[in-house]
Amino acid sequence: QGILERLNAGEIVIGDGGFVFALEKRGYVKAGPWTPEATVEHPEAVRQLHREFLRAGSNVLQTFTFYASEDKLENRGNYVAEKISCQKVNEAACDIAREVANEGDALVAGGVSQTPSYLSCKDKAEVKAAFRKQLDVFMKKNVDFLIAEYFEHVEEAVWAVEVLKESGKPVAATMCIGPEGDMHGVPPGHCAVQLVKAGASIVGVNCHFDPDTCLETVKLMKEGLQAAKLKAHLMSQPLAFHTPDCGKQGFIDLPEFPFGLEPRIVTRWDIQKYARKAYDLGIRYIGGCCGFEPYHIRAIAEELAPERGFLPEASEKHGSWGDCLSMHTKPWVRARARKEYWENLKPASGRPYCPSMSKPDGWGVTKGARELMQQKEATSEQQLKELFQKQK
Amino acid sequence: QGILERLNAGEIVIGDGGFVFALEKRGYVKAGPWTPEATVEHPEAVRQLHREFLRAGSNVLQTFTFYASEDKLENRGNYVAEKISCQKVNEAACDIAREVANEGDALVAGGVSQTPSYLSCKDKAEVKAAFRKQLDVFMKKNVDFLIAEYFEHVEEAVWAVEVLKESGKPVAATMCIGPEGDMHGVPPGHCAVQLVKAGASIVGVNCHFDPDTCLETVKLMKEGLQAAKLKAHLMSQPLAFHTPDCGKQGFIDLPEFPFGLEPRIVTRWDIQKYARKAYDLGIRYIGGCCGFEPYHIRAIAEELAPERGFLPEASEKHGSWGDCLSMHTKPWVRARARKEYWENLKPASGRPYCPSMSKPDGWGVTKGARELMQQKEATSEQQLKELFQKQK
Amino acid sequence: QGILERLNAGEIVIGDGGFVFALEKRGYVKAGPWTPEATVEHPEAVRQLHREFLRAGSNVLQTFTFYASEDKLENRGNYVAEKISCQKVNEAACDIAREVANEGDALVAGGVSQTPSYLSCKDKAEVKAAFRKQLDVFMKKNVDFLIAEYFEHVEEAVWAVEVLKESGKPVAATMCIGPEGDMHGVPPGHCAVQLVKAGASIVGVNCHFDPDTCLETVKLMKEGLQAAKLKAHLMSQPLAFHTPDCGKQGFIDLPEFPFGLEPRIVTRWDIQKYARKAYDLGIRYIGGCCGFEPYHIRAIAEELAPERGFLPEASEKHGSWGDCLSMHTKPWVRARARKEYWENLKPASGRPYCPSMSKPDGWGVTKGARELMQQKEATSEQQLKELFQKQK
Amino acid sequence: QGILERLNAGEIVIGDGGFVFALEKRGYVKAGPWTPEATVEHPEAVRQLHREFLRAGSNVLQTFTFYASEDKLENRGNYVAEKISCQKVNEAACDIAREVANEGDALVAGGVSQTPSYLSCKDKAEVKAAFRKQLDVFMKKNVDFLIAEYFEHVEEAVWAVEVLKESGKPVAATMCIGPEGDMHGVPPGHCAVQLVKAGASIVGVNCHFDPDTCLETVKLMKEGLQAAKLKAHLMSQPLAFHTPDCGKQGFIDLPEFPFGLEPRIVTRWDIQKYARKAYDLGIRYIGGCCGFEPYHIRAIAEELAPERGFLPEASEKHGSWGDCLSMHTKPWVRARARKEYWENLKPASGRPYCPSMSKPDGWGVTKGARELMQQKEATSEQQLKELFQKQK
Repeated sequence: QGILERLNAGEIVIGDGGFVFALEKRGYVKAGPWTPEATVEHPEAVRQLHREFLRAGSNVLQTFTFYASEDKLENRGNYVAEKISCQKVNEAACDIAREVANEGDALVAGGVSQTPSYLSCKDKAEVKAAFRKQLDVFMKKNVDFLIAEYFEHVEEAVWAVEVLKESGKPVAATMCIGPEGDMHGVPPGHCAVQLVKAGASIVGVNCHFDPDTCLETVKLMKEGLQAAKLKAHLMSQPLAFHTPDCGKQGFIDLPEFPFGLEPRIVTRWDIQKYARKAYDLGIRYIGGCCGFEPYHIRAIAEELAPERGFLPEASEKHGSWGDCLSMHTKPWVRARARKEYWENLKPASGRPYCPSMSKPDGWGVTKGARELMQQKEATSEQQLKELFQKQK
Repeated sequence: QGILERLNAGEIVIGDGGFVFALEKRGYVKAGPWTPEATVEHPEAVRQLHREFLRAGSNVLQTFTFYASEDKLENRGNYVAEKISCQKVNEAACDIAREVANEGDALVAGGVSQTPSYLSCKDKAEVKAAFRKQLDVFMKKNVDFLIAEYFEHVEEAVWAVEVLKESGKPVAATMCIGPEGDMHGVPPGHCAVQLVKAGASIVGVNCHFDPDTCLETVKLMKEGLQAAKLKAHLMSQPLAFHTPDCGKQGFIDLPEFPFGLEPRIVTRWDIQKYARKAYDLGIRYIGGCCGFEPYHIRAIAEELAPERGFLPEASEKHGSWGDCLSMHTKPWVRARARKEYWENLKPASGRPYCPSMSKPDGWGVTKGARELMQQKEATSEQQLKELFQKQK
Repeated sequence: QGILERLNAGEIVIGDGGFVFALEKRGYVKAGPWTPEATVEHPEAVRQLHREFLRAGSNVLQTFTFYASEDKLENRGNYVAEKISCQKVNEAACDIAREVANEGDALVAGGVSQTPSYLSCKDKAEVKAAFRKQLDVFMKKNVDFLIAEYFEHVEEAVWAVEVLKESGKPVAATMCIGPEGDMHGVPPGHCAVQLVKAGASIVGVNCHFDPDTCLETVKLMKEGLQAAKLKAHLMSQPLAFHTPDCGKQGFIDLPEFPFGLEPRIVTRWDIQKYARKAYDLGIRYIGGCCGFEPYHIRAIAEELAPERGFLPEASEKHGSWGDCLSMHTKPWVRARARKEYWENLKPASGRPYCPSMSKPDGWGVTKGARELMQQKEATSEQQLKELFQKQK
Repeated sequence: QGILERLNAGEIVIGDGGFVFALEKRGYVKAGPWTPEATVEHPEAVRQLHREFLRAGSNVLQTFTFYASEDKLENRGNYVAEKISCQKVNEAACDIAREVANEGDALVAGGVSQTPSYLSCKDKAEVKAAFRKQLDVFMKKNVDFLIAEYFEHVEEAVWAVEVLKESGKPVAATMCIGPEGDMHGVPPGHCAVQLVKAGASIVGVNCHFDPDTCLETVKLMKEGLQAAKLKAHLMSQPLAFHTPDCGKQGFIDLPEFPFGLEPRIVTRWDIQKYARKAYDLGIRYIGGCCGFEPYHIRAIAEELAPERGFLPEASEKHGSWGDCLSMHTKPWVRARARKEYWENLKPASGRPYCPSMSKPDGWGVTKGARELMQQKEATSEQQLKELFQKQK
């Protein structure tokens, strides 16, 4: 059954977790560029991660094609041993995802994300051409549906959806924005409306913000769609980091990004709360993004097991709400084998010299320069300096 | 070259990270029992983790035989789909480790750990028989050397070393104790002396405490050996969690154990500091235990690259001290591409409703009962209740 | 010169600090009722506190008549040794304030605050009669101007201003509200407009929220007045506690109120920042409320000394920005004798087992019941229980 | 009844709180020098503070003669309007304390503290002469007993006790040291023994450390005396700041000293726990030092009311364990009117950008230089620089 059949039938669809962060920790992705050449260089590592998400309960395996547009791969490819073509990366990603999907009951989704071309102000035709190049691979490899994800500007997201819709396959679209809207200031509700009008059947958010903030944003999208009398399925794939302190541009501006985020990692219990809240909000495509490890995906599946009627395979190695501690030799550890305990625990950081919140970086920049950078990221160093000078 | 040749030549040997915690998050190990039947059930998952550690710089791959003694596997085996024999688990572990070791320049170490038999007061012969059963497999599979690890009582650790020494192979021995010593009150210095006298060529600590605390304990071991005019190589494989607040028995008593430890996870920079301090203290076998992911092991290898003269393979996907951020489009993210930044960062937890430290559980228990439990863990529920009653 | 002459001439007027909290800690006011019978019982203690504020730079001494309406004093008077009449309390307050004001260059302001009569739904005439009774004393004692402060409902505040305006003296009016507005949901801008239309020459906020939040609220008031093309002087007398975590009703709902607020107490440097921000926002009547001790008032006077051209008397015992440490024998303490040090210090709490933020209490209450309580506080226990039952 | 009669009879004697910190906040004492010329300049402010402590339950009023030795007053007197003689300061202090003591049932204690003469290596005769000068005033004014307090070196403390003993009056002696002992490395037990041998009838600690640390130190003193078979009454007057993070020299080295200590201020409930622990440890002279306000002293008196059989006067304005909240209109505030609530509250700091602990300053200094400074504080700037240079 396809993605829309499932969602239309009221099923809960569980997404997968974050590949670039998980594979960075495993040694296969470089932070900074965050490109997916591992599909060619180390397919076994990518395959294993897919398998873990499948086992944890994912119903969708996204091809590991994040930032796999040609312009991105070329732009930053110097750390890749040999030149690997955009096509090869995308093809390998499709093959691996399909191989693992066939081991269970999962769909394969081909994914595109925002491009350097857009940020450096290339025109619509050129940006669309980049998406189309990836789409060609997805069609050849016959993925089940398509996702346009991680867009900071709704304009580019709409272009992506328009290209993906050419395929005739169902399209989902998620933006990496918060309640304040996209980098041009378009509010979430308007973004959702534009995406649906462009052809997306599923809309929502991914990345950049923690679960609570993402749900807030999806709620605004839902309200926007209702106001416009449009219908679409809702989707949410947040960070697995607590980021109550981040600004409009999300966790990238936090001083801890990307190598000091550990104390912000969410627990499995945080994810169970997220899954419940997402469900209650009417979201039926529930997954994760950066920071989500297999056990976080399993937590979604376990929280929603009553609604779905089954547990994922990986739950054979997990007790519900810590009940695997009920036979521990120490009575005070046994006392942790219950829901109330973990639900109410306020876990300590073990870091008495650290604060609980940070101020996002970049606020020294004058407002105009900052906004300009938000709008078109890739202005040159020189241009930025001039801007700063001018505005001081 | 064998482990002792390397150490005797002054080489730094990098250990691997924690299998039970990493594989629990990946969905293959059950928290609570923490047993390694995954070697039989899901060898691909175990193989992949070994491979990641190898790639990150590990010179030793420990067979995934933690808690793989027969008494442990039988005792808690009910969550394992089919009955899997102790021998099969140990054999598979050896095969997988060897397969991956052959992909690079790593040694295979067969490992044993503390047994339920000891804790339930079985006699020396019976406890030794359990170790010998695992040793038989290690000999058959011809591992390169042996490790007795995760012992809370030096008495049992000595028995393990004695058994392992029967093989004629080099033996390393690490206890999961802190500066206060073992559960019978034997100080670290005395523990080290006993272990060396029993035949261990390498001694140190693993698990239960954070890097700083572990180094403090190894320092006491070193001083104990010096006072006794004994020589041995030093070894350290701590947690990758900050635990400044834990008591004598380590992180198990912390209220966050084992499902709320996320905010305590150490960063790669914490590990670089640890590696440097360990090196300066004279420790030459430097690895990790629970919580250590491949990128933590890579951090050891990167910190000590000047001494060793080379970087691990996985560093091709990692910039030293964040230099992979130097091309970021935002100037404030570029500003993070330097050592001083990450060295001095005090990362926020993103959790304003959580404290920075916890009080270990179990302190309501009267001192006598507690000590008794520390000495012999596995007294029955009934016995404990009686003890508590008696001592109130 | 009167208050309006000063403000019209562009002078900065410094208010005083919080009497009920300061005198509670000194042993003369009871937390809970917070009534000012100390003016009769212990005039020397009240006099001394006035004197300290005068010395610290206060240009206005408010009569200690907080909660000194007859209904309040009767309602909760059982802990007062002998029956002390409302008139006596108010008269003594005026006498003490005048006596100390004459020692320097300060004005005396007679103050009224919200009444139990209003909260228990007495009619306008009855509520106004309570204010008039206090006003009679203020007129007999010839205070310099009048303040209506600590109102949660603009309706009652307007009634108070109307009564006070009968005197012909200048009237200031401050509400204890945050950016969300009054307890009936009237936004700050509307509140300000109503108060000015009722006759207030000075409007703003006092109590319930920390300096930052109060300034945000005054900003909204300012914008409301501008939109309505009304003119008034602005005033701000916040808490000296950090309360970023409080809800609509302010610090009373925080679990720490009123006996665990110590870790939230602001430093003198926090106050200097507050004074500067208040000034930059156009506020010219700058003082404090609960938690403000004399040294906090001095910090306002020191921060604004460049604008005012003089320091308060108490600065003879205070070095600017810690320069009194410049002769300390320890070099690292001498290093603290500079502005940058104190401006940037993030002071530790010394409390590793405590969080940095709390959730306000009272959120378990159903929304309807809560709102009802917010609107009319003094419903009986029985009524509340019924409400809760009904809405579960 | 004299101090010894009371203590010998088993009575609990409650000390007073910290004058220099309280009067600094009120505007009468300058941080840095911390000298008590206010006794002459503003006797009404000193009198009022004595009165508040008396009302809060203090049985002893210490003359405000801290740092009132001639060398100290001369050394740093330039911020004092007119030249005020050492004799005048001490005389006025005695007069004020006696005047207030006569309003209740309190004793007057004349106090001396460590001298610049000692720190700059003046000889025993000269240091003793400084104490004798103050003692002459105490004898003329006929104080009830004498206290030598705030000594970092037991040698100087012994000299002070020897001088004070010449008077024939009872002598108490407290050092501002922690469990690591005095600045020459003499452990607390040895210090206590020396002080008792020199003639002190009461020994203990004051200032520099928080209540818990001070009790730990007094415990060591008690054990030292027991081992030496000496008898003395025990006394404790700690800070009212949480300082778990301070080093050997106490809170002066904390980065927050002295103008950012607010988040560390202890609550009344912390003090009740302290009073109980002090009592249980056998301490019968229980008071406070820097940071102790009248309500902290009242908390001692309230905690020990069951043992003493009465409450202090100021308790008429205080409900036990928050019971004054039992009539609050909001049910969730009423819920705070009980002991369990306040006993278990972990109060938030309201400061999400601040850590919970600090590293003490001064650790960059080489060990030798630091120790030298600890031993003899007043080495010149030049000497220190040379030391630092030499040891780098």
